[in-house]
Amino acid sequence: MSMPLNINIRLRLNNQPGTLARVLTIVAKEKGSLGAIELVSASPSYIIRDLMIRLRDRRHLGDIIGALDALPDVEIIHVADRVVMKHLGGKIEVSSTRPIQNWEDLALVYTPGVAGVSEAIAQDPDMVYKLTMKGNSVAIVTDGSAILGLGNLGPAAALPVMEGKAVLFKRFANINAFPLCLDVHEPEQIIEAVAAIAPSFGGINLEDIAAPKCFEIEEKLANMLDIPVFHDDQHGTAIVTLAGLLNALKVVNKNIQDVQVVISGAGAAGVAITRLLQKAGVKHIIVCDRKGAIARDNMPTVNSKKWIAENTNEECRHGSPKEVLTGADVFVGVSAPRLLNRDDIMKMAERPVVFALANPDPEVEPEEIFDIAGVIATGRSDYPNQINNALAFPGLFRGALNCHARTINDEMCLAAAYALAGIVKDEQLTADNIIPSIFNDVVAPTVAKAVEKAAEQTGVSRSILNGKEKEFDSLL
Amino acid sequence: MSMPLNINIRLRLNNQPGTLARVLTIVAKEKGSLGAIELVSASPSYIIRDLMIRLRDRRHLGDIIGALDALPDVEIIHVADRVVMKHLGGKIEVSSTRPIQNWEDLALVYTPGVAGVSEAIAQDPDMVYKLTMKGNSVAIVTDGSAILGLGNLGPAAALPVMEGKAVLFKRFANINAFPLCLDVHEPEQIIEAVAAIAPSFGGINLEDIAAPKCFEIEEKLANMLDIPVFHDDQHGTAIVTLAGLLNALKVVNKNIQDVQVVISGAGAAGVAITRLLQKAGVKHIIVCDRKGAIARDNMPTVNSKKWIAENTNEECRHGSPKEVLTGADVFVGVSAPRLLNRDDIMKMAERPVVFALANPDPEVEPEEIFDIAGVIATGRSDYPNQINNALAFPGLFRGALNCHARTINDEMCLAAAYALAGIVKDEQLTADNIIPSIFNDVVAPTVAKAVEKAAEQTGVSRSILNGKEKEFDSLL
Repeated sequence: MSMPLNINIRLRLNNQPGTLARVLTIVAKEKGSLGAIELVSASPSYIIRDLMIRLRDRRHLGDIIGALDALPDVEIIHVADRVVMKHLGGKIEVSSTRPIQNWEDLALVYTPGVAGVSEAIAQDPDMVYKLTMKGNSVAIVTDGSAILGLGNLGPAAALPVMEGKAVLFKRFANINAFPLCLDVHEPEQIIEAVAAIAPSFGGINLEDIAAPKCFEIEEKLANMLDIPVFHDDQHGTAIVTLAGLLNALKVVNKNIQDVQVVISGAGAAGVAITRLLQKAGVKHIIVCDRKGAIARDNMPTVNSKKWIAENTNEECRHGSPKEVLTGADVFVGVSAPRLLNRDDIMKMAERPVVFALANPDPEVEPEEIFDIAGVIATGRSDYPNQINNALAFPGLFRGALNCHARTINDEMCLAAAYALAGIVKDEQLTADNIIPSIFNDVVAPTVAKAVEKAAEQTGVSRSILNGKEKEFDSLL
Repeated sequence: MSMPLNINIRLRLNNQPGTLARVLTIVAKEKGSLGAIELVSASPSYIIRDLMIRLRDRRHLGDIIGALDALPDVEIIHVADRVVMKHLGGKIEVSSTRPIQNWEDLALVYTPGVAGVSEAIAQDPDMVYKLTMKGNSVAIVTDGSAILGLGNLGPAAALPVMEGKAVLFKRFANINAFPLCLDVHEPEQIIEAVAAIAPSFGGINLEDIAAPKCFEIEEKLANMLDIPVFHDDQHGTAIVTLAGLLNALKVVNKNIQDVQVVISGAGAAGVAITRLLQKAGVKHIIVCDRKGAIARDNMPTVNSKKWIAENTNEECRHGSPKEVLTGADVFVGVSAPRLLNRDDIMKMAERPVVFALANPDPEVEPEEIFDIAGVIATGRSDYPNQINNALAFPGLFRGALNCHARTINDEMCLAAAYALAGIVKDEQLTADNIIPSIFNDVVAPTVAKAVEKAAEQTGVSRSILNGKEKEFDSLL
């Protein structure tokens, strides 16, 4: 593995002044990135400490351990991978909101009391939103066919990612999300499985399902089910991209209807971004896949790309992203690392907007173009302007669940993007501040409110519980 | 509805001595069963109190409200159904065991850290038991075709029951169980849906699925999947029944191999009880369905009943439960209320064992036969000897999950029954104490230990993590 490592290293240090300093000197010399230092225990002769260190890879770990081992007054007790430590036993649990201490609790929460609740729902199906967890539950569904940037690793390997997503749902929107990693891979099978489990949930979040099957799966499920079906890799990315773009265009003082946009990547994200930017008023888009610009005089066979050919690139331009980028105002990359360099960005129009969202390595290194780009955004948290789906999906689902929406439609996605963009006030807007942080507590509630309003305006919210509230809350 | 009601009634009482006493006198006179009385708030002129009262039905509620309304110094603020109150918003939630406060937490729990965990699982699939929630997660699956005693009310109406079950899994065995109420009803569809979602779970608990399809579904899934598949209505009931019977036979001093058993009910529970009692050594069983004793000279068409015909009732007796009960030592009812009366039990052998498990109304009223039965058990908590599935399934799954079992086999079910019976020591055994309470904290761990041992002895546990532990816990 050449992946970066987060380690926790436990050391027994002789209790003499200067021992820790010698350890830290070695960590610094070996270029380990030091995090917290914790005191585990102390005695007159020894002090035990945990050091958290970020390293380049396993070889780097070997170097640093070798160097620490050579210190006479230091003993290495244990080295653990902090990511693994955070994953042991999983990251989510199902807990009860109604503790059972005795027979009376049991009779109310389970039999015989629950029988009356079942009968009430059988008589009035809408009551399931009031008397069960359905209304605040989301299934996170994947077949593991496009896990992060790793590809098709299957359902088991997808589980830690989906658990992480459930953690985000809870953290940012207090939604009960549960990972369902499917051991089926044909679109029809995935559709059947999701339709089968739908009654337990108020919404379905599709995740890490490969294109182009993701389009068919989402479309058919959305038509079949009376709850929202949302493929986050498509629309989550599109919403945050649009929000960022709205603000970026303000910074460079360009009009959304005039800009020429080049999108690199015609997968789930690329297609959804194209659609949403058009709904928001972008008129000139060229989308490139691995073979170059998609154009209607060279019609692709895949449906989603056919749609792109028919609805973008009105001048039928051809060539790689490098080639069609000449004169463009906006580049949106959802494709592959290091596709472009400084010279390519130089050929763009004045004050170009560059969203290089490939993760972890962007389409162009921000360092190369800081001085020539009008605005730069990436998918990473260690640069300004992170385009992170966690800015959209929690608030979006919160809003949809709040009004028991039947679907998530374009208007709700647009409302989410405008609301998200609006969180950065005009006086705060700069090239380095076009989008709020995911840890800004205002984000999810603001997005939720806008989404709920859009759902109501477009008639997809359920107002079914009006009037029934009273009947159920009170027997009077 | 003629269902019993648990209500919470909020009253504003004039703050004068004797007001509460007058209220309680009325509750007593109207025969309301009084629970807790809580003080909500008090002022010099008024006291607000909540009274919890159990009532026969809505008419009874009307009577009591009318009587309280007539009191001049009492005002009714609110009357609420306590069962509904316990169900508002559902009874379970999904929570994170790894709180996210900052970017570093996020990098460890989600991207980019989680990518390495996914890759580790892709390389070694067994690691999913260590690095995700799978090993402690159970899907509670139903199609809502046989909800409690209510019948086929469908998946939405099943949800509150399955949530209640999830609460029990957590309460008694710290297992993360999640309800999946399926909107498909053909056996083949249910099998496909469960097989599809299996990768997220360490076990499948089938629940409230109607007979005879439940048999086919369980058998096929158990063969397809490498995790335990367990239909609680069958085997949970069978395990607790066997445990109770083992102890009941000790009380009446009869030998399991000699007793004549009559089982009323040939559904999920009846078939599983028959099988498990035979595995435990019972030789003489007659099973009755609605048409009477099942016998091989009148072969049924349904497979599960065919099996019963071929494997029980060696003398080919015919007739209703009343008729074949003559001379029997044990009656096990998993069928319908008030099937038998005192005279029927009188015809049984000396010191008859009567398990009248129909719920909420048993096959014979215990009050009718207290003086003539050797041992009586029911499914109810308000009589001694409650045969409650919650005595078995939590410990059984705990044991199976502890060793990452591939299946739950007969040996594990028998081990669970013997362990459960063994919790009541010989010196504690009486006709009124053949089975522990579900609130006895010893139950689940004792059952789990026995089940885990049986899994190891029969070779269905995974010892896969041995040796790999070290590699993952430590990088040294």
